[in-house]
Amino acid sequence: MFLGIPVSPGIAIGMPLLYEPFVPGPWQKKVEKGRVEDELRRFEDGLAAAEKELEKICSGMKKNDPEKAKIFDAHKDMLCDAAIGEEIRQNISNSFSAQEAVYQVFGAYAKQVAQAPDPVIRERSADLLDVRIRLLRCMQGVPERDLSALEKPVILVAHDLLPSDTASLDPQKILAVLTEDGNTTSHSAIIARSYGIPAVLGIAGITGKVQPGNLVVVDATQGKILLDPDETLLQAYREKEARFNRRRELTRAWITAEPRMKDGERVHIELNIGRATPQELAQADSLDGVGLYRTEFLYMGRDTLPSEEEQTVAYSRVLQAFQGKPVTIRTLDVGGDKKLDCLELPAEENPFLGVRALRLCFEYPDLFMTQLRAMLRASIHGELWLMFPMVGGLSDLRRAKEFLQKAKEELDRSHIPYADNIKVGIMVEIPSIALMADKAARAADFASIGTNDLMQYTMAADRMNPKVGQYCRMYDPALFRLIRLAADAFRAEGKPVGVCGEMGGDPLASVVLLGLGIRRLSMGLSNAAQIKKNICAMDARRAAELAQSVCEMDTAEEAQVYLKRQLADFLPE
Amino acid sequence: MFLGIPVSPGIAIGMPLLYEPFVPGPWQKKVEKGRVEDELRRFEDGLAAAEKELEKICSGMKKNDPEKAKIFDAHKDMLCDAAIGEEIRQNISNSFSAQEAVYQVFGAYAKQVAQAPDPVIRERSADLLDVRIRLLRCMQGVPERDLSALEKPVILVAHDLLPSDTASLDPQKILAVLTEDGNTTSHSAIIARSYGIPAVLGIAGITGKVQPGNLVVVDATQGKILLDPDETLLQAYREKEARFNRRRELTRAWITAEPRMKDGERVHIELNIGRATPQELAQADSLDGVGLYRTEFLYMGRDTLPSEEEQTVAYSRVLQAFQGKPVTIRTLDVGGDKKLDCLELPAEENPFLGVRALRLCFEYPDLFMTQLRAMLRASIHGELWLMFPMVGGLSDLRRAKEFLQKAKEELDRSHIPYADNIKVGIMVEIPSIALMADKAARAADFASIGTNDLMQYTMAADRMNPKVGQYCRMYDPALFRLIRLAADAFRAEGKPVGVCGEMGGDPLASVVLLGLGIRRLSMGLSNAAQIKKNICAMDARRAAELAQSVCEMDTAEEAQVYLKRQLADFLPE
Repeated sequence: MFLGIPVSPGIAIGMPLLYEPFVPGPWQKKVEKGRVEDELRRFEDGLAAAEKELEKICSGMKKNDPEKAKIFDAHKDMLCDAAIGEEIRQNISNSFSAQEAVYQVFGAYAKQVAQAPDPVIRERSADLLDVRIRLLRCMQGVPERDLSALEKPVILVAHDLLPSDTASLDPQKILAVLTEDGNTTSHSAIIARSYGIPAVLGIAGITGKVQPGNLVVVDATQGKILLDPDETLLQAYREKEARFNRRRELTRAWITAEPRMKDGERVHIELNIGRATPQELAQADSLDGVGLYRTEFLYMGRDTLPSEEEQTVAYSRVLQAFQGKPVTIRTLDVGGDKKLDCLELPAEENPFLGVRALRLCFEYPDLFMTQLRAMLRASIHGELWLMFPMVGGLSDLRRAKEFLQKAKEELDRSHIPYADNIKVGIMVEIPSIALMADKAARAADFASIGTNDLMQYTMAADRMNPKVGQYCRMYDPALFRLIRLAADAFRAEGKPVGVCGEMGGDPLASVVLLGLGIRRLSMGLSNAAQIKKNICAMDARRAAELAQSVCEMDTAEEAQVYLKRQLADFLPE
Repeated sequence: MFLGIPVSPGIAIGMPLLYEPFVPGPWQKKVEKGRVEDELRRFEDGLAAAEKELEKICSGMKKNDPEKAKIFDAHKDMLCDAAIGEEIRQNISNSFSAQEAVYQVFGAYAKQVAQAPDPVIRERSADLLDVRIRLLRCMQGVPERDLSALEKPVILVAHDLLPSDTASLDPQKILAVLTEDGNTTSHSAIIARSYGIPAVLGIAGITGKVQPGNLVVVDATQGKILLDPDETLLQAYREKEARFNRRRELTRAWITAEPRMKDGERVHIELNIGRATPQELAQADSLDGVGLYRTEFLYMGRDTLPSEEEQTVAYSRVLQAFQGKPVTIRTLDVGGDKKLDCLELPAEENPFLGVRALRLCFEYPDLFMTQLRAMLRASIHGELWLMFPMVGGLSDLRRAKEFLQKAKEELDRSHIPYADNIKVGIMVEIPSIALMADKAARAADFASIGTNDLMQYTMAADRMNPKVGQYCRMYDPALFRLIRLAADAFRAEGKPVGVCGEMGGDPLASVVLLGLGIRRLSMGLSNAAQIKKNICAMDARRAAELAQSVCEMDTAEEAQVYLKRQLADFLPE
């Protein structure tokens, strides 16, 4: 038995596929004059083979997933681009080997595209490199071993999955994903969850142990892997698999449901997003908006700050997708545990209690103003709710609003339009602002309770430090009482108040939040169906009674036991 | 004009004394046989001179400060100790130089004494080294330049003052202390404050700039130093000095007053102590007990953990001194910003949100049990209030009480007595326990609100990080509201609730605390007289009205301006 980190729940039983991405072999840079013809032929043959592969992928994909087929259509265009082909042929005529010519020319184009001002064009750089590796492989005569060409469903076993590996992944053909590297937040985990494929990552030595003939049982609810189990055990897992799948299908059907409690009270279910994946945007119709748009991803993995134009494009895209529904965009929240390459942040003894989020934006007025202008410019494309993180008191909110006012005046001077119905709200994630919520509710248009940070400050326990995990407790009555303060105050003013931290997507905690009068929950897409299903099975009075009981309990442990007993049906699987 | 850190307020005008501690010159280790007689004579002459010095110091001190005279009496005994003298003479006879013999023999005795199990005896090690330096100086024929032999009052200018320099310091002869090194928490600052001597530390280059003939003006309320000011300026500072001194004398008279509000309500003023200095213990009659006894000092600056016996002695000493009055001893509070040599603490990303104080004690059960047994054993000598720091919820308190119960059972088995009226209380310094104060008030015998930590967690701002100083605000209405929650809950249960953080000793914040119904304030000795004076000038109703207003204000800035205006007379100087 192997143990790993369960990152996407489910049970799978099947044969393994050991997946190793193609690495081109070494080649000569230059060849003798006499071999130019051979090299030209090698290029043309490879080109033809690669084109055939892409055509096959496209035609197979067009009926099921036309959106994804477009990606491979674009790859075909790049592969057959006349200018690129001409340049490669020219280089081969000048005695470069076919492989070297392909490598250099595609590389140069990718580099050029990567410097384009338009972020959409820039993204094409990765596609050009993707095409290059396909062409090099075809020229070496190595058959495609990608994840779209699987004949029967398999359990994918790999060191790690790269972003490009997963573009062509057919979720119908992948029973489960097992990797040696990775954890809950790695790319493989995110992809697996978005497709609902069971996945266990971080399994030491798994690629060396699994053989092609093994029958593999994956219990991704527990993080357990079994090889060739006996018949009794196998039967038990088959039943567990069937139970899990029945249940999940049932739950999935709830994603499009209207989240209304049994007594008719409507709850708003919104999304927490970052890069805004196609899967997320595709659910714009089923959900009530974006409760938390994390803008950090725009700043990550790069040396320069994103421009106003680039940000405007990114924000506009999401506002358009959710047209008419609120899109809550949070200003930059870095510092604490989140570092950036493009910003030098000073080392601090206690970064979670240091210059982070809004405090950091105050220190970098240009960065802050650029982001605010971009949000304002995007606001004409939809319903913008602009949100400031790490607001500790009214002074912080006033100061942030002064920046916003200045940004508006700058746009006015340049005659750049922005919406006049923008809501300006705050994250409630510092205890002090929850304690002052009556004041905050008059000064802000809405509030979103960030339970992750609010929890760690209320308990004085770093949520990233496993050694104090026992002191950082989601079901603590103290935390619910503090949330109640904030919820009551904003409701008294008739201002929207929601939760965008983990508690909103937690099957048990979310019921208590409903009981505290909260009617807006924002969460990751993977939790939305389950929470909608739960809401439809709950009524407001019972939720209020449960919340009342929990707030009067002594400890988090007691509250958790009680909620689990009262809400056994509300837990997935 | 020079600027430095004002660490002890006041105005002083006078001539400077540049103080440089004696450093013995180099010496030969061995001498030729023929010079043994010379070396013996050098020793005897030095011994006689040193004895004469000590006698002079003692006789001058006996009438004014008999307590301190005893220290120098003890030094004389060590100097003239027959065994030590014999060993030194023996070494000289074996061809060692007189200086080498004195250096080695006193050093060996000091080392031996430093390893004694009794902490009182161990402290004698520093005295032996003190005597050695005096003897070496006398043998070199260098006259004493110590601080007890000053003829007229001077302004002391030094690089830094060592603990030993200040033992003989005559506060009547020192107008002010100016140093290049040091800050608010350094030894010089503590001594200066305890004597009420104006002091400005950390003045870059001051020792190189001040000349013996300069007239020096020290404004230690502002941290300003002037050399040879003109007559107008000098006159202004003379008036400021007189005003300050009149006011301070008036305030000092209040230390023995009974702190009772105008409407008769009695307030308890207690001390925050660490090592428990003679100045602090001398005020046991004037004050209502010890509100916070920090036990960390027992663990600091050493390689091994303090034994149960050593701790029992230290705790008993304080309990005895305050006989009949509560002595609140806090269990070990390290981690966060406080490190120990004798305990390996793992590095953490956010130590203030990590394994500190009680959490650390849970990880080191032997350390915790030893301390609890020592406290129990000491409890028979007075009124012990045992306090746990960093209690986040009822689970923490229950777990800590289990340890205490186990410690009692261990003592029972060994037939070691302890008091049966020990109170067991908690620090309220984590927001979660303040929010659960109704529960905590039933489970604990008393509470002490640690405002320093409570502030930094409530505001999510590291109180040691100057970059977030503006977010860590003592007068924030949010903090007062949270304190009100805790105060109300404990008062409702009829359990004592006090404040032992900085706010208790703050002239403005302490009035708001009174207004929130708190009747126990614990503070450093230097603040006690001022706070008593303020209490006697306040009545409970007005304090309640002020507190009510402050809790309804928008920001800390607004509250501070309001309190300063309302309570202008309550500020010192």
